[in-house]
Amino acid sequence: MKKNVAVIGAGSWGSALGIVLADNGHDVRLVGRREEQMEELNQYHTNKSYLPGIDFPTSIKGYTDLGEALQDIDAIVLVVPSKAMRETVKSLLPHLTQAVPLIHASKGIEPTTHMRVSEVISEEVGTTGRISSITVLSGPSHAEEVALRQPTTVTVASADESAANEAQYLFMNQKFRVYTNPDLIGVEIGGALKNIIALVCGVTNGLGYGDNTKAAIMTRGLAEIARLGVQMGAQPLTFSGLSGLGDLIVTCTSVHSRNWRAGRMLGEGKSMEEVLEQMGMVVEGIRTTQAAYELASVNDIDMPITTALYSVLFEQVNPHQATIELMGRVKKNEVESLFNL
Amino acid sequence: MKKNVAVIGAGSWGSALGIVLADNGHDVRLVGRREEQMEELNQYHTNKSYLPGIDFPTSIKGYTDLGEALQDIDAIVLVVPSKAMRETVKSLLPHLTQAVPLIHASKGIEPTTHMRVSEVISEEVGTTGRISSITVLSGPSHAEEVALRQPTTVTVASADESAANEAQYLFMNQKFRVYTNPDLIGVEIGGALKNIIALVCGVTNGLGYGDNTKAAIMTRGLAEIARLGVQMGAQPLTFSGLSGLGDLIVTCTSVHSRNWRAGRMLGEGKSMEEVLEQMGMVVEGIRTTQAAYELASVNDIDMPITTALYSVLFEQVNPHQATIELMGRVKKNEVESLFNL
Repeated sequence: MKKNVAVIGAGSWGSALGIVLADNGHDVRLVGRREEQMEELNQYHTNKSYLPGIDFPTSIKGYTDLGEALQDIDAIVLVVPSKAMRETVKSLLPHLTQAVPLIHASKGIEPTTHMRVSEVISEEVGTTGRISSITVLSGPSHAEEVALRQPTTVTVASADESAANEAQYLFMNQKFRVYTNPDLIGVEIGGALKNIIALVCGVTNGLGYGDNTKAAIMTRGLAEIARLGVQMGAQPLTFSGLSGLGDLIVTCTSVHSRNWRAGRMLGEGKSMEEVLEQMGMVVEGIRTTQAAYELASVNDIDMPITTALYSVLFEQVNPHQATIELMGRVKKNEVESLFNL
Repeated sequence: MKKNVAVIGAGSWGSALGIVLADNGHDVRLVGRREEQMEELNQYHTNKSYLPGIDFPTSIKGYTDLGEALQDIDAIVLVVPSKAMRETVKSLLPHLTQAVPLIHASKGIEPTTHMRVSEVISEEVGTTGRISSITVLSGPSHAEEVALRQPTTVTVASADESAANEAQYLFMNQKFRVYTNPDLIGVEIGGALKNIIALVCGVTNGLGYGDNTKAAIMTRGLAEIARLGVQMGAQPLTFSGLSGLGDLIVTCTSVHSRNWRAGRMLGEGKSMEEVLEQMGMVVEGIRTTQAAYELASVNDIDMPITTALYSVLFEQVNPHQATIELMGRVKKNEVESLFNL
């Protein structure tokens, strides 16, 4: 059945998800901030700044007015940076006349509160009754490849099983395979924390190390993310799935990853301040490293890779020295130290 | 304490492991077949055909005579192709005057018998009492990077805990971190079956697909290997470790992998016969696909990726069609289908 879906956030990932929904026969309202970008979409059916070379289905309409976009809506898909999440949720609530399901596709852990994205949303929604369910969509998915209809797999997770099934129904097609997972906590933590490991992979490449070191960091890094996640209520198997391992693979093996590039500069000897200045934009993994380091300390979880990165970022430890310390720890039994279950 | 260790197999991996042992102060006897190769090693301390540009420690001596190499030996490291395993074990037993520990670093499942490498060794050793323990060493490790002393991690596994600890002692140093694992079955199955997934990753690249598809195949591929492994007696967590996930990452993301290259040709439309002719050498993953397909059928395990590859290799199914079928299966819950526990 055809649905009216508002996709809030007209960057590359929001646009790509809009294309998937349009391919499935839904009417899509893509909400962006810039007038000229939305005019380009409505007139030429392109979004060249974010998905160059892609022709958008005509059933995707561009909006800048949130109130207009949210009229008689069946579902909301939120694809905004995690730091803009509170403000965005606040701004959309007054326009809703009935409770609708919300699906978000954002990654991050809020500094100081250490809240996951769905917790931030839930807190803002409060007792308004305007949102009927919160679901996360996550997985190994470069937006450009999704827009090219290359075979892609993602996970949708919600505390509400029927909401996850509904999200699966909205998005799933022959090129975009959607798995459900009841473990909202694990899916959100895996997506956020994988950026730490991507940074460290970049550091080792900057130090001149190759595939062996990268594979070691990814394998042991996923294990320590899982250890923290389990402590926070996640299911361990979720980290072996698409939103954990899958997303980690895409992020750590792509030279286009912003976190990987920032890490490589660190490995080449630049300080965090120099890296941030040169990147000229937010490096999500740096904030996440601080949050994970704090969470690991509070919960007494062994996270040697995160700790090593923290020492490089915030305590001026030389990356070469940090690597030596990482390799020189006591002899370990692999399984005992994998999940510490 | 300094040990006398014979490394049988003077290819790149045997040579690299010999270097690790020599760095740890042991006397290493590297056994190869070709006289001139061993002379090069003894005279110039190089092995240019397999590890170009590497200077070998002088405590590594080359041998072609197995009897000489095995005199008063403390441990044997076997690094020969899995198909040469039976013959090699047969030939070394008569030279042993006391029971010594054996560590192997070979990957594969024997066709028709479906035996793992340690089972083949054990069968050949029989009741001779010449081998005191069998341990496997496996993990994400390009030989060239190990020879360059880049940080590398591996797993050693044995049914005999003290044998695994002894292997860890022999090999572990600042650049080569060794984890023990009691799960011999899981470590051997992960190492063998990852070649199937590397082949399929190559196929998807040959079809023109990118990182999303590759990450999906690796994630779901590891899950189906784990399903078969668990049925065969392995521990599920082992597949999240260095010999499972770690080795999978190195094999699937390196364009130097023989299996990946063979897969890419398949994806580009070549038949299995054409690929084998063009490669001019054994593609381990093709034999392993047949073995895994048979094992999955017998044990009634759902292995959709292996089955799809089998249909392309042995039933002339078009790779494009196989991908469509793989993506179009029924909607699934991720966790239920990850390990089917």
